[in-house]
Amino acid sequence: MSERTVEVPLGPNAYSVRIAPGLIEQVGEFVGALGDVSRLAVVADSNVAELYGPRLMESLAATSLPAELLIVPAGEENKTLATCGKLFDDLFALRPAMDRSSLIVTLGGGVTGDIGGFLAATCLRGVRFLQCSTTLLAAVDASTGGKTGVDHPAGKNLIGAFHQPVGVLIDPDLLESLPAAQLRSGLAECVKHAVIRSRPLLEMLETRAEDLLACRSETMSELIAANVRIKADVVVADEREASLRAILNYGHTFGHAIEVEAGYGRITHGQAVALGMVAANRVAVGRGLLGPDVACRVEEVLKRLDLATRWEPLSAESLWSRMLHDKKTRGGKVKLILPRDVGRVEIHDDLSTGEVSAALEHLCS
Amino acid sequence: MSERTVEVPLGPNAYSVRIAPGLIEQVGEFVGALGDVSRLAVVADSNVAELYGPRLMESLAATSLPAELLIVPAGEENKTLATCGKLFDDLFALRPAMDRSSLIVTLGGGVTGDIGGFLAATCLRGVRFLQCSTTLLAAVDASTGGKTGVDHPAGKNLIGAFHQPVGVLIDPDLLESLPAAQLRSGLAECVKHAVIRSRPLLEMLETRAEDLLACRSETMSELIAANVRIKADVVVADEREASLRAILNYGHTFGHAIEVEAGYGRITHGQAVALGMVAANRVAVGRGLLGPDVACRVEEVLKRLDLATRWEPLSAESLWSRMLHDKKTRGGKVKLILPRDVGRVEIHDDLSTGEVSAALEHLCS
Repeated sequence: MSERTVEVPLGPNAYSVRIAPGLIEQVGEFVGALGDVSRLAVVADSNVAELYGPRLMESLAATSLPAELLIVPAGEENKTLATCGKLFDDLFALRPAMDRSSLIVTLGGGVTGDIGGFLAATCLRGVRFLQCSTTLLAAVDASTGGKTGVDHPAGKNLIGAFHQPVGVLIDPDLLESLPAAQLRSGLAECVKHAVIRSRPLLEMLETRAEDLLACRSETMSELIAANVRIKADVVVADEREASLRAILNYGHTFGHAIEVEAGYGRITHGQAVALGMVAANRVAVGRGLLGPDVACRVEEVLKRLDLATRWEPLSAESLWSRMLHDKKTRGGKVKLILPRDVGRVEIHDDLSTGEVSAALEHLCS
Repeated sequence: MSERTVEVPLGPNAYSVRIAPGLIEQVGEFVGALGDVSRLAVVADSNVAELYGPRLMESLAATSLPAELLIVPAGEENKTLATCGKLFDDLFALRPAMDRSSLIVTLGGGVTGDIGGFLAATCLRGVRFLQCSTTLLAAVDASTGGKTGVDHPAGKNLIGAFHQPVGVLIDPDLLESLPAAQLRSGLAECVKHAVIRSRPLLEMLETRAEDLLACRSETMSELIAANVRIKADVVVADEREASLRAILNYGHTFGHAIEVEAGYGRITHGQAVALGMVAANRVAVGRGLLGPDVACRVEEVLKRLDLATRWEPLSAESLWSRMLHDKKTRGGKVKLILPRDVGRVEIHDDLSTGEVSAALEHLCS
């Protein structure tokens, strides 16, 4: 039962990401070591609260601190400012009352972490929060980096803040309860990390796809640690997404638009990103930046991980309009991350409507 | 027409507070000099928009940037998350769309600045904002320091973020349209600054009360600059309110509770703070920390500035309960700033219910 730790050395906002089987039973210990905590508020979605809430609350009971469980309705469609309003009502009704030394603990996947982190960022102008990630997607991506926030009908994550957690605790054994589609969704983000920064990770994904899809604890721990290291490296170099951090959006320019266009709930985030990577690769090949063999290799690994690389026809016009209103778009220029090889990507901001059409044709070919 | 500038040297978040008659006509010039601005969104309340909106928009037109005026309903009762939700709908409907290089310009008093600043803090995880303050209270206090946020039924400013503006522009000529009660509300915060940090400022308030109540442009400029210097000093020493910044809450522990208890709209913020200072001084005198002569001197200057130092009877029990749930209260200990002399205050956290009763008796004596 080895524990892996990845440091995220963000100066005064530094923290560790810890990965170990059974870690959910040590959350109370972690909180106890933080010191100067007045009370706890746990934020979890309805599904996760039922599965793992009791074990977490039991672990927290060891701290003797007042602790209550607040429920977020499950699902991306509930990641809204209105949901935050209701959670603030719950938070401010707690007795003893929340104060600036209170701690919010999030237990769940990306949606819960984003909402719970945003509550922490804006509750009393900022309280600490601790992330306990229960999905592979959250573990390898959302948990690290301090992006918090909610969606708006005009787009994903349009309302939010950068707010780093005081720690991230990942218990890979909790992933066993993940639906297969959710597991694959996380694996897509691992492919993304591999393509932007790491040949060895791509090789791991290629050669150990079976163990990964079977969610073997030791393999998952290794996978998560490798991904968090990449994510942490990029975030530390550019905490506020001024430049380098943009490479993490590889697959996301198309992916976000496809996710909204296909409809939340009909496609997972990772599956949309997988299609987004295929689309971006098509643009890169079209520009002569990327060899078709590399594009093919990426599609192969996605397939091996049970991710679709083709999709039903989508409207190029509405996809383009969604990209134009993405929050990363500046002055009408759509930013796109294009690979030149495995481990090497570039930031471009001159995507054309013609390229979008060609990429979409490829996606339904 | 002299211009006064006070620097707020907060490292990467540094900015200047500029005070000059006619400055509202130079906002466009300031924005032009910022560089890399993609579009402007002006946030103003309905009253201020009518009075000064056209002059500001005309000045901004010189930048040739797209600029729209968004209206906040006037009044503290509208400083809510729900109002932010509506403003986000407006913001994200703008075309060309908001992006991370967009700038929010706030035009108004504290409520507008708090809401507009919070929008800027959380729009696309943070865009820049410029404060144009049109009330004395905002000019001497809220405009500097980066506190943004909204109220919750459980208390004032419970939801918010620290987010520094890129600049603060104050045109003292705009203060002439202020209702007398609003002017006095700002003067109360000036007394607060004087008691915590500056004998010369207290003397100015004592000897030039008439000019101040008459809102003479040159006197107001001098007053505002003196206050912003004090505020900036304290904020720079402690941006996130970890310690020293708490002294700015002198008069506010009682003041916030009185403001809510008396009912928003029935009492101005400054008038409530004035009563809060009288109450805190009573506690300080009771503990033998402050000479009764100094307490008397502070009451005298408040009276000279047409601020009430006595109030109708208030319930000690509900006031105490409100203080307990203030966001600065930690672990059930109510923090109180107590003066030892003019220019010298201390932070205490052991206020008792008996002292609250005694202070309230004094307030209606």
